[in-house]
Amino acid sequence: MKFSAQAIAAFLNGIVEGNAQVEVDNVSKIEEGRPGTLAFLANPKYESYIYETKASIVLVNKDFAPEKPIEATLVKVENAYESFAKLLELYAANRFNYSGISQKSTISDTAQIGENLFLGDFSVINDNAQIGKNVKIHHNVTIGENVIIGDNTEIRSGVHIYYDCVIGQNCFIHAGSVIGADGFGFAPQQDGNYKKIPQVGNVLIEDFVEIGANTCIDRATMGSTIIRQGAKIDNLVQIAHNVEVGQNTVIAAQSGISGSTKIGKSCMIGGQVGLVGHLKIADGTIFAAQSGVNSNIKESGRILQGSPAMDIRGFQKSSVYFRKLPDIVKRIDELEKLLKNKA
Amino acid sequence: MKFSAQAIAAFLNGIVEGNAQVEVDNVSKIEEGRPGTLAFLANPKYESYIYETKASIVLVNKDFAPEKPIEATLVKVENAYESFAKLLELYAANRFNYSGISQKSTISDTAQIGENLFLGDFSVINDNAQIGKNVKIHHNVTIGENVIIGDNTEIRSGVHIYYDCVIGQNCFIHAGSVIGADGFGFAPQQDGNYKKIPQVGNVLIEDFVEIGANTCIDRATMGSTIIRQGAKIDNLVQIAHNVEVGQNTVIAAQSGISGSTKIGKSCMIGGQVGLVGHLKIADGTIFAAQSGVNSNIKESGRILQGSPAMDIRGFQKSSVYFRKLPDIVKRIDELEKLLKNKA
Amino acid sequence: MKFSAQAIAAFLNGIVEGNAQVEVDNVSKIEEGRPGTLAFLANPKYESYIYETKASIVLVNKDFAPEKPIEATLVKVENAYESFAKLLELYAANRFNYSGISQKSTISDTAQIGENLFLGDFSVINDNAQIGKNVKIHHNVTIGENVIIGDNTEIRSGVHIYYDCVIGQNCFIHAGSVIGADGFGFAPQQDGNYKKIPQVGNVLIEDFVEIGANTCIDRATMGSTIIRQGAKIDNLVQIAHNVEVGQNTVIAAQSGISGSTKIGKSCMIGGQVGLVGHLKIADGTIFAAQSGVNSNIKESGRILQGSPAMDIRGFQKSSVYFRKLPDIVKRIDELEKLLKNKA
Repeated sequence: MKFSAQAIAAFLNGIVEGNAQVEVDNVSKIEEGRPGTLAFLANPKYESYIYETKASIVLVNKDFAPEKPIEATLVKVENAYESFAKLLELYAANRFNYSGISQKSTISDTAQIGENLFLGDFSVINDNAQIGKNVKIHHNVTIGENVIIGDNTEIRSGVHIYYDCVIGQNCFIHAGSVIGADGFGFAPQQDGNYKKIPQVGNVLIEDFVEIGANTCIDRATMGSTIIRQGAKIDNLVQIAHNVEVGQNTVIAAQSGISGSTKIGKSCMIGGQVGLVGHLKIADGTIFAAQSGVNSNIKESGRILQGSPAMDIRGFQKSSVYFRKLPDIVKRIDELEKLLKNKA
Repeated sequence: MKFSAQAIAAFLNGIVEGNAQVEVDNVSKIEEGRPGTLAFLANPKYESYIYETKASIVLVNKDFAPEKPIEATLVKVENAYESFAKLLELYAANRFNYSGISQKSTISDTAQIGENLFLGDFSVINDNAQIGKNVKIHHNVTIGENVIIGDNTEIRSGVHIYYDCVIGQNCFIHAGSVIGADGFGFAPQQDGNYKKIPQVGNVLIEDFVEIGANTCIDRATMGSTIIRQGAKIDNLVQIAHNVEVGQNTVIAAQSGISGSTKIGKSCMIGGQVGLVGHLKIADGTIFAAQSGVNSNIKESGRILQGSPAMDIRGFQKSSVYFRKLPDIVKRIDELEKLLKNKA
Repeated sequence: MKFSAQAIAAFLNGIVEGNAQVEVDNVSKIEEGRPGTLAFLANPKYESYIYETKASIVLVNKDFAPEKPIEATLVKVENAYESFAKLLELYAANRFNYSGISQKSTISDTAQIGENLFLGDFSVINDNAQIGKNVKIHHNVTIGENVIIGDNTEIRSGVHIYYDCVIGQNCFIHAGSVIGADGFGFAPQQDGNYKKIPQVGNVLIEDFVEIGANTCIDRATMGSTIIRQGAKIDNLVQIAHNVEVGQNTVIAAQSGISGSTKIGKSCMIGGQVGLVGHLKIADGTIFAAQSGVNSNIKESGRILQGSPAMDIRGFQKSSVYFRKLPDIVKRIDELEKLLKNKA
């Protein structure tokens, strides 16, 4: 879809300077502007780019006064950054019209389907699943038996959700993620073999949760593995059985949370962080990337780093000295020599 | 399926106290008990919960004598924990009746199919594949050319097994795993480009192996990447070409084993552990989470931690001192000052 | 397909010694040789195996003079290793004849398909996608709207490529990888919730790139996440939004590159390495496995290790002293005692 500068200005309550008929169908950064795209200038540091950009339209703050001629059409608005964000959202939300139920997919007779479902090709909705309104399920997806999916949730291609799991409203699950595979529980036997411990719980994902690509959230042994409202989980993350991830907690890529660990609200977990099992992590805790966490965090708002994780300042100081260990040992050698000489 | 207290007691050779007609269709922990579920009480520490639980039935040891009235129906058995485990297994094994071959899947004319196959929708069984008896293959699965799958093995949705790979009997492979992708082998050329080294081996998985979700096991350059009998591998694990994982070895999530490394029997590898290539690891070795292993382990039964990995006690001691490095350096400063003053 | 010693010798311009009619249909290592396979002997260290190998044919250098009788048929060639590599490539390239377009897949009316496409079962090619010549797309694959795929590229089963992404010529993408999922971008709101930042860019993969299994490459917020020509990326790797991976750079399994980091040409990134966001890494940089990189690398050709990463020699020295920290502290205790006694 193409939009003219005139239409955009009307939508944003802005004023056009230049060719009001010029059209765009995409966005770009001002420093990488291409013809047919719209960019924005909010930070004065980037002003020089506006005189060279190939973008067809640039959103600017209404008080922007160019020092040189500009080829692009300007749309002057109250707040260029916010207007741009508004356009982006509109653009992203309306690019594709996913609608209709593909006849190439399978829906169990006992499944309940809400209105306005988009169901792509080669997906399976199993027995007794309950799908809310305005749900989008793309291609090659499996929705297990008894799974419940809330309104407005979107599930991209290649996601597999095992039986009994519950996904809230307004969630988004990216391609390739697996929700509800068995927790990793095996009881060692006397002969050295392991016996599988049945994993009869489920996964419960509350509303407004986003889950990245190829992430795994295992079902509970009993009860539920829980992802609380508003949590955001990146790609390739491992969430083990009976974990609880608190409200609005953010987990970056390739991190792993071991079994039964409970993470508080509004925590931030960097990439490649690992937490051992059965921990309690206080609200607002921040773990820097690659941290290894093996003890409870009781006080809110701490920032930790390292493996084992410690206060980030302490880690950073100790890391500086780690680097200097060869020098430190030389100083000890020297002291020993001096003292020996004195003896 | 619902079961009455009476039926459960009959199955477990137990005695009912309370309403023998009450029915359950799920299990719960006694402290989270919900109506319609069965819980158990084995550990006296949890006794207080039995007086409050909403579970409809509770399994207890036969000598359990309540101190107060209990709302739930009791089933008294020889060993409440073992009886519960027995019920769980029965429950898990019989929940879904996966049977039949979907006409929406593809089976090559040259594939051989054993009796009692469950084949879900939108799966492909390629040329000359051999599928054993009682195998379950869920949805959106690819079984490559010449692949052999042993009796009673279950393969969940979205698994892709490349050509020539061999999967044993009684294995379980969770959703999204990839078996037999090319090993990561490229020969540097004089012009700086890399040339792919053909990976013409396969993956050989023995019996009773469980593989988690979104795990990758690469095919060998030549010969086989081997997972020995009874090994258990968690989610998001990387097993490179020509690796061998020993019998009953357990590998937790997000660990990675580099090319040609051979891991002994009954090892335990924690989460996010990495091993470099071409190592030999003795039987019974334990690596704590996030260990980085870059040398052979020749002696059996060692426990290691750290990157590079060392004996766990040494690692833990050194970690305590790492934390204290700023103090340690102050002590050296002090000593130097003292000695200087003396000089 | 079977090949006789005679046919192989003719192809390699070699000379047969022994039964020229014996046939092989696979390869093996000389030390693991099986009947019906071809092995090679190049390194004299392995000579003893040639007298015991069960391989039917062995390639040897033309000057090889056996000390004992050999059961296998020999094919004498100029360079046994190079001839073997040549055969391997031929073998790998011609094993399967993937051709034809499955009627069980979906191709949008608006998609453009090049000649000689192989399209497996249950795959979807969405609107306005452009597929080059000689492309192979296996089973359960999603090709998003407007995606462009260059000539001779092969995409294995279960790969999902989101809309607008561009894949070059002669690329290979292994099963389960996800190209173009949303970058992980959320703006914190005053109420503690996060608001999704639309990710309206794409992924641009140049020619001759190989991508492993279950790897994730996220689309850019704006502009492109770029993988330059000849880069090789292993399994379970995370490439975040707006990252650029340089030409001929190699990234081993389970590594993660955070948002907007630019990696130079011909770098080598070991397994489980993590880079924070917004870095610039010079050409030819090598990071050892499990490194954690949090600062720019300006000088080419450095080798780093550790978390935080430092020069590898310094890391290795410091690691030795880390192990000795308990002893080092004892030496300081001793010095303090000595000085106290002297005081």
